[in-house]
Amino acid sequence: MDGPATAPLPLTRESVQRAHEVISSHVHRTPLLSSSSLSHDTGTTLLFKAENMNRSGSFKIRGAAYSVACLTDEERARGVVTQSSGNHAAALALIARDNNLAAHIVSPRTAPPAKLAAVRAYGGDLTLCDASIESREAALAEVQQRTGACYVPPSDAVNTILAQGTVFLEAEEQAKEGGWGGLGAIIAPVGGAGLLGGIAVAARGTGVRVFGAEPAGADDCVRGLADGRRLTDFTPNTIADGLLTPVGANNWPIVQQDVEKVLTVTDGEIIDAQRLLWQRLKTVVEPSGAVAFALARSQKFRDLGVEGPVCVVLSGGNVDLDAPPPWVKA
Amino acid sequence: MDGPATAPLPLTRESVQRAHEVISSHVHRTPLLSSSSLSHDTGTTLLFKAENMNRSGSFKIRGAAYSVACLTDEERARGVVTQSSGNHAAALALIARDNNLAAHIVSPRTAPPAKLAAVRAYGGDLTLCDASIESREAALAEVQQRTGACYVPPSDAVNTILAQGTVFLEAEEQAKEGGWGGLGAIIAPVGGAGLLGGIAVAARGTGVRVFGAEPAGADDCVRGLADGRRLTDFTPNTIADGLLTPVGANNWPIVQQDVEKVLTVTDGEIIDAQRLLWQRLKTVVEPSGAVAFALARSQKFRDLGVEGPVCVVLSGGNVDLDAPPPWVKA
Repeated sequence: MDGPATAPLPLTRESVQRAHEVISSHVHRTPLLSSSSLSHDTGTTLLFKAENMNRSGSFKIRGAAYSVACLTDEERARGVVTQSSGNHAAALALIARDNNLAAHIVSPRTAPPAKLAAVRAYGGDLTLCDASIESREAALAEVQQRTGACYVPPSDAVNTILAQGTVFLEAEEQAKEGGWGGLGAIIAPVGGAGLLGGIAVAARGTGVRVFGAEPAGADDCVRGLADGRRLTDFTPNTIADGLLTPVGANNWPIVQQDVEKVLTVTDGEIIDAQRLLWQRLKTVVEPSGAVAFALARSQKFRDLGVEGPVCVVLSGGNVDLDAPPPWVKA
Repeated sequence: MDGPATAPLPLTRESVQRAHEVISSHVHRTPLLSSSSLSHDTGTTLLFKAENMNRSGSFKIRGAAYSVACLTDEERARGVVTQSSGNHAAALALIARDNNLAAHIVSPRTAPPAKLAAVRAYGGDLTLCDASIESREAALAEVQQRTGACYVPPSDAVNTILAQGTVFLEAEEQAKEGGWGGLGAIIAPVGGAGLLGGIAVAARGTGVRVFGAEPAGADDCVRGLADGRRLTDFTPNTIADGLLTPVGANNWPIVQQDVEKVLTVTDGEIIDAQRLLWQRLKTVVEPSGAVAFALARSQKFRDLGVEGPVCVVLSGGNVDLDAPPPWVKA
């Protein structure tokens, strides 16, 4: 795919800091929430980085903002295009609208209706296709050829990874400002691993332990790490619709080198965690956004013996509010 | 009723500041949220003070924390008692637990189950009674006589009013820190009016315009202001279950003198506002917590010609998550 022509920055903490300077006027500095009851229940001081409360309802706004900021004038004139079933699509449509650019979005018909509605609400030009990878790639190629728009990938471009890593910089600062001193560890969910990869880059040299949380029904990362190779050929089956993609090629070596461990959680654990976040933190998270908390609550996480506060990244909050939540029997 | 023996502070902005120093380690400094889309849709810069995200799920934690902090050692030994159908009960039970005090809570059987469950979860000793004022007062008197516990009223004690006013101090500071300069106005919901009254006291001399928002089905404050007398004899009928009480006697003169205007919203407007807050801000508010936003969205509010950012207080977030939300047909 034809990506932004701008030379990618190196994957370093300093590059994440530079990305943060560029995007901070375009995205929210989301709250770092605490809950004495949830901390008490888990026996760990938990701090929740509420990226579900970021613009467009997820951390994806960071990557979209930075990708668009890095476009040349000529590229901006052509507009942007992407292929996504969810939060990246909405984020890119919103950032494009901020910048008066055309946004062409290719999404599978099976994408969550609430996420497609967000793309339309932000003025994105939506092309629906079938769910297969072939159909999605063909539709993307067609739109790109027809419009000449510049491709902004969802999770595996270097600029995207750097921008997602800004979550870590803010959490680190906010943990100090809030009087918690600093972080002992951070947990991020894993799909394409742009968020986890960026966080791991940003955390280099800080001593903060970095963990990934993956749905058991889309555990390509955990199995790939065990096998020593990136898995791309698998059929995911999980309620966490934002984490279906395999780990990207650029993210893979970062996950191998800079992430201490990736652990899985079941869909049942994800739903329990999601309900608790709505109830106790009063924050609307989608299933994917509750995966890191599901891990934080588990015995296997406690067994890792983390010392100091644990930052749990709530990655997104885009759900269909007209349907009953997954813990309510329809 | 036998209240705390501590001499009440005068109702001044300085007393609110002093209350803030006392409670700030016991309550959250809740986020001040913004949304470019909601601001765009209403044509006003809206800043949302997310008290629904405070400990126990509402601003009531402030009054409870200050009331308990003001008790003498002898009073603490006797424990605390209150009569409330909801958020004050949960807040007092949580603060009592923090302080290792007994909390005796009298609630009508008709109170929202989620709110009663919270009282129990925080270790409160719950006494159920009938919904009539007579039954509630008789049950309160009985519990108070049996236990000797110190009465902590929900909204009309001077210390409670001062503590609820700390919401304004934080919003004012956060609006500056966030780069919005300051506030043009603030809107708070009206039940007993402890929150609105405290905010009005805290806002004295600042030039910030103070407005109240009341459900049309519990509009004793609006009608009372028109009549020039406090109304106490009415039967409320609104989805906003936290705003059923008449304006308290201590709050009444403050509302008359320091609040520019109180305006009503319908239950339909409240439900629409509640859904929008869940969807766009990703924050779980209860109907009462959406009343101020319902007013902020109305033409009659726009007609007031406020200049500068408007702070909308989201007062609470305690809903039954196992039932469908009010915008979903069961």
